[in-house]
Amino acid sequence: MRVQGRDTRACWWDGDAIAFLDQRALPARVEVAWARSVEEAARAIEDMAVRGAPLIGVVAGYALALAARRGGDLTAAYDRLARTRPTAINLWTGLNAVRSAAPGADDMLAAARAFDDAEVAAAEAIGTHGMALMRPGIRVLTHCNAGWLAVQDWGTALAPVYKAARAGLAPFVFVGETRPRLQGARLTAWELAQEGVAHTVIADNAAAHFLQRGEVDLVLTGADRVAANGDAANKIGTYTRALAAKAHGVPFVIAAPLSTIDRATPDGAAIPIEERGAEEVTHVEGVDEQGVLRRVRVTPEGSAARNPGFDVTPAALVTSLLTERGIVRASREGIASLFERD
Amino acid sequence: MRVQGRDTRACWWDGDAIAFLDQRALPARVEVAWARSVEEAARAIEDMAVRGAPLIGVVAGYALALAARRGGDLTAAYDRLARTRPTAINLWTGLNAVRSAAPGADDMLAAARAFDDAEVAAAEAIGTHGMALMRPGIRVLTHCNAGWLAVQDWGTALAPVYKAARAGLAPFVFVGETRPRLQGARLTAWELAQEGVAHTVIADNAAAHFLQRGEVDLVLTGADRVAANGDAANKIGTYTRALAAKAHGVPFVIAAPLSTIDRATPDGAAIPIEERGAEEVTHVEGVDEQGVLRRVRVTPEGSAARNPGFDVTPAALVTSLLTERGIVRASREGIASLFERD
Repeated sequence: MRVQGRDTRACWWDGDAIAFLDQRALPARVEVAWARSVEEAARAIEDMAVRGAPLIGVVAGYALALAARRGGDLTAAYDRLARTRPTAINLWTGLNAVRSAAPGADDMLAAARAFDDAEVAAAEAIGTHGMALMRPGIRVLTHCNAGWLAVQDWGTALAPVYKAARAGLAPFVFVGETRPRLQGARLTAWELAQEGVAHTVIADNAAAHFLQRGEVDLVLTGADRVAANGDAANKIGTYTRALAAKAHGVPFVIAAPLSTIDRATPDGAAIPIEERGAEEVTHVEGVDEQGVLRRVRVTPEGSAARNPGFDVTPAALVTSLLTERGIVRASREGIASLFERD
Repeated sequence: MRVQGRDTRACWWDGDAIAFLDQRALPARVEVAWARSVEEAARAIEDMAVRGAPLIGVVAGYALALAARRGGDLTAAYDRLARTRPTAINLWTGLNAVRSAAPGADDMLAAARAFDDAEVAAAEAIGTHGMALMRPGIRVLTHCNAGWLAVQDWGTALAPVYKAARAGLAPFVFVGETRPRLQGARLTAWELAQEGVAHTVIADNAAAHFLQRGEVDLVLTGADRVAANGDAANKIGTYTRALAAKAHGVPFVIAAPLSTIDRATPDGAAIPIEERGAEEVTHVEGVDEQGVLRRVRVTPEGSAARNPGFDVTPAALVTSLLTERGIVRASREGIASLFERD
């Protein structure tokens, strides 16, 4: 994907470190940062300098290869990385892909690169299959950021949008701002602007209103973990959009690579939901009129806040799953069919 | 209601001007401001220095009385005030109550005071009737601010909560932060803290999650206009909570005085929805670590935003209407029954 006209990835292997765009600085600044140790990589994931389920898997994979190159304790490295964030299953998919190449450090780095490349290819294939959902002037509602900042090069939910834009279909995107961390307002809006895709940012509260008014043709989001029965965990607020889409007969489609599908998790109730710090709710970060990044408190001092990072959308509300192997029903059978081809 | 231990109202007639708490400064500062002309009162309503459907009606009533005392053109004053905000019907209820006492300036001021006092009495009666919905340890989810900052002294949705707290029932309130203007995070949390009511602020996105997890016993909101058939316009995001409450069998109750019910509006489709400025979405205001109120931009420069201020919840999703005359069904018959007693 292009940043200020240049081809850029959300992370890459850079000599002997993991380079990444620090997503906390966007959209104010495009900043490259480096993780030179497992601990730095783990913190980049925890602090959401890198985020998005597939990207977390890629970074974790590179970090395990980094540990091997440094001659570190691979079990300790695996455990440290596995503790960073509990919901996105891609974290373990990436770690396991690289661990399976142990103990050779070069083999592990090659496995991390292969996993990365496979995710890029999966994202592009999601875009290609997703073109079946696109039509001229389609109005898509998305949530959080499931674009190329979350998945190298193409994204998941945004991959078909980018493909459609390049095919001249002129898609339009309603971008839910995605409180508390505002990944929609900050990251998705920025990505779409870089690619020249028409969009408007809305408060999360307004999503159901635009569905009710008939202004949305398709709701398209990513996922952090899809259970074996098709229940899907994704950024907090996704469930409410699925309910509203159902109420208005608008398709609700989840776009995710197979690395996000966890057949060992039977259903949504078994997906661990990360509870993040209250200060993400009580404070908001943005730039002031001088362009300085500032953090302001919006709640009274002393008011508590709760901050679940994800919610679970039951499979019954998911119209279909869009994957690199095509579009299937969000059901046990649909999901099993994806893996039968292995 | 108490502010820092002192009895305070959200607005009051002060000699020859309208005094009010400037709600834009909360929760950072408690600031009293004055509207000394119709234009100042109109701007206070437009800029949301005063807000909340019932309070808008009270301020507009006083402003029309102010025009009469100054010997101004009453028709022009009425028209100016009526143009401030389109959704809350209380604006016209208040204006009409005072106009009906014209042309005597003293009579009009008396009418404005009587309307104000009647709203206070209605809010308290809503609290009393609402006690039927309360039980020990009840967990209430509310949206926006429908407390005493929106309706003198008691509020609408929060009136039963305050009554329950004073009766020792120890209610707990999930406060939806209510983007874009954060009236929940800023005003409702502050009100509840002043009254010592246990609460936690949540991102709007998390409301459906807590309903899904069985952590909410009752959803209770105010309204800006209730149509003759029971459809209700309220702060953007209310509709999505109603959908989620329905999905989980949790009662969704709208608390509103009769001044909010508009029998001349047949249904929700006929309620005008105010579209406010994009900068309410693109920017957030809060206090920095030095306690200075600052406004920061959260979206990329150049990304557009849309900002509908309200949405419409269909009557079918409203379990009941809580009014100063008791609890009725949100239906044509239920609403008609409220007015039969006139």
